[in-house]
Amino acid sequence: MTTLDDLPIRDDLRGKIPYGAPQLHVPVALNVNENTHPIPEDVAHDIIARIAQALLSLNRYPDREFTALREALAGYLGHGLSPDRIWAANGSNEVLQQVLQAFGGFGRTALGFTPTYSMYPLLSSGVGVEWIGADRDADFELSPETAVRAVEEHDPDIVILCSPNNPTGTPVPLETVRAVADAARGIVVVDEAYAEFAPPGSPSALSLLEGRPRLIVSRTMSKAFAFAGARVGYLAADPAVIDAIRLVRLPYHLSALTQAAAIGAVEHAPQMLAMVDDIRGQRDRISAELAGLGYRPYRSWSNFVLFAGVDDPQATWAALRDRGVLVRDVGIPGTLRVSAGTETETTAFLEAIAAVGR
Amino acid sequence: MTTLDDLPIRDDLRGKIPYGAPQLHVPVALNVNENTHPIPEDVAHDIIARIAQALLSLNRYPDREFTALREALAGYLGHGLSPDRIWAANGSNEVLQQVLQAFGGFGRTALGFTPTYSMYPLLSSGVGVEWIGADRDADFELSPETAVRAVEEHDPDIVILCSPNNPTGTPVPLETVRAVADAARGIVVVDEAYAEFAPPGSPSALSLLEGRPRLIVSRTMSKAFAFAGARVGYLAADPAVIDAIRLVRLPYHLSALTQAAAIGAVEHAPQMLAMVDDIRGQRDRISAELAGLGYRPYRSWSNFVLFAGVDDPQATWAALRDRGVLVRDVGIPGTLRVSAGTETETTAFLEAIAAVGR
Repeated sequence: MTTLDDLPIRDDLRGKIPYGAPQLHVPVALNVNENTHPIPEDVAHDIIARIAQALLSLNRYPDREFTALREALAGYLGHGLSPDRIWAANGSNEVLQQVLQAFGGFGRTALGFTPTYSMYPLLSSGVGVEWIGADRDADFELSPETAVRAVEEHDPDIVILCSPNNPTGTPVPLETVRAVADAARGIVVVDEAYAEFAPPGSPSALSLLEGRPRLIVSRTMSKAFAFAGARVGYLAADPAVIDAIRLVRLPYHLSALTQAAAIGAVEHAPQMLAMVDDIRGQRDRISAELAGLGYRPYRSWSNFVLFAGVDDPQATWAALRDRGVLVRDVGIPGTLRVSAGTETETTAFLEAIAAVGR
Repeated sequence: MTTLDDLPIRDDLRGKIPYGAPQLHVPVALNVNENTHPIPEDVAHDIIARIAQALLSLNRYPDREFTALREALAGYLGHGLSPDRIWAANGSNEVLQQVLQAFGGFGRTALGFTPTYSMYPLLSSGVGVEWIGADRDADFELSPETAVRAVEEHDPDIVILCSPNNPTGTPVPLETVRAVADAARGIVVVDEAYAEFAPPGSPSALSLLEGRPRLIVSRTMSKAFAFAGARVGYLAADPAVIDAIRLVRLPYHLSALTQAAAIGAVEHAPQMLAMVDDIRGQRDRISAELAGLGYRPYRSWSNFVLFAGVDDPQATWAALRDRGVLVRDVGIPGTLRVSAGTETETTAFLEAIAAVGR
């Protein structure tokens, strides 16, 4: 039998393993920060109607510039953004890959503050970019001073700030984003995949885009929009950044089905986002109850909570799984991460972890 | 205003322009080798039902391994292929990009025989692979001797054989594939995007996979399956090749909508492919009538015809466009390329080009 070692793969891929959160079937899956609320029924009906329309010309290539979707996303983001400042792709992973292709490539570097989203190093390696992981402050916070010091030390071509940060939940203050954008020579990406779960009224890095052509803010429909299965990520930036991405994007990368479904969801943004309030409430409940059980939850502006004080994360993970609740061991010693689910799911998790005991 | 030149894009991307066949709205669009037949109505109904089902859990990430789709594609391809030898992505462009990422990357080379699919150099450059264009024989044919000579001269890490070849329509004989697979040190990809339009009974490179772990056969649903808007490409290869691709693929790259739609189409393969016979007939009609008009069509096993004898391709292209017929100037001097449409569309093209005159 032929194995991977027998094939002429890239030398720097040898020995690596693919990204892979386990896809187990359990009653309560709170492991990959999904929005556990299904799409509201009338929104689903509208999406189906749009998809049925798209199906009539599915034999043709889709609109390569997905104009209608960009208009819808520009309207949703506000901040005076026009459609020529919007780009989208199959999940924010593809958006970030395109940014790394256009502004990175072999011999260039990308820097982030660890622990952070585990795909950043993999996306970088996939297109030949060297990944640099810099340190955070205590409790995974990120001050302007700490961030700028790392940027000055490593002089990266691309900086990725995940805010709120996955897997810690910690927001990156806007002053930090501003300071990094000023200090960096290259591209600065603020990955706001979880931005909608921040306290209402919190400013987004979108407010910093004007006058900063090297700043990119990326978003996803996977979380607040409950659209993980549809794979839609997007970004806002200077129109010249969009021009750069067109040099590396695969033509017709967004299918007509994806475009139709995403437009339907964005047009119903208020309904889709009604779940966000519930999720924030369950997140805060998780933090409060875990603290009551003696765990130490980190500050979270996202739809999940990372909590410390877990003596044996693998054992606790397995004990929860045996009770039908899936959480995530993200590899930070003494911690586990749990997504905020519906009230029922959250209750199931809290009862299970109380039963497992510390 | 910020321009592309002001941004820190990769040095080797400076001055490049993005892929972009014009997306003009004309009555008869025969420019990008689409299948101009819409999806049959009862197949469309089944696809919509499957998508509606997928929508119920669209808030969850899709099956990362798209198991049901791989089973369907394995069944469709036959040749004793099991699902663990199948991979799919958002269009064969993404399939090829993944292959170039896994087996190419910076400092490695990919070789093809020009003129060939214009995306190969762009896909290569996008992930740092150096593209080498080698020559074909007369009339764009490709003999084992010519192909092997180029492989021996350049010793590429990846060879891409497009068969039938886009934009010329020319098939690559199976003896050439076999000879290249024997001569090459690295990966050999046979891009069979248009394979279903070959004369019935023609052997596919799928028949050569057994015992050749470095051989990859890629396909697309865009052409024969009339699914260009859905963006589904796939490949068959040794399971170890699939393992290699998992190292570079974006997790959850195939949306739940894409998986549902593609399964529906493949389950109805006989109905979807009923159009292929019609298209072959129109292609042969184009070749015969163009020859009658004094043009020189090249041998085509695909759903399009490249024809020479066009004194001023740009002028003829514009004159056809003014008559509502869009064809493609692929940049080969003295030629134009036209896709075989429905009988009505094909008639419109043939009448228009006869009226334009040589």
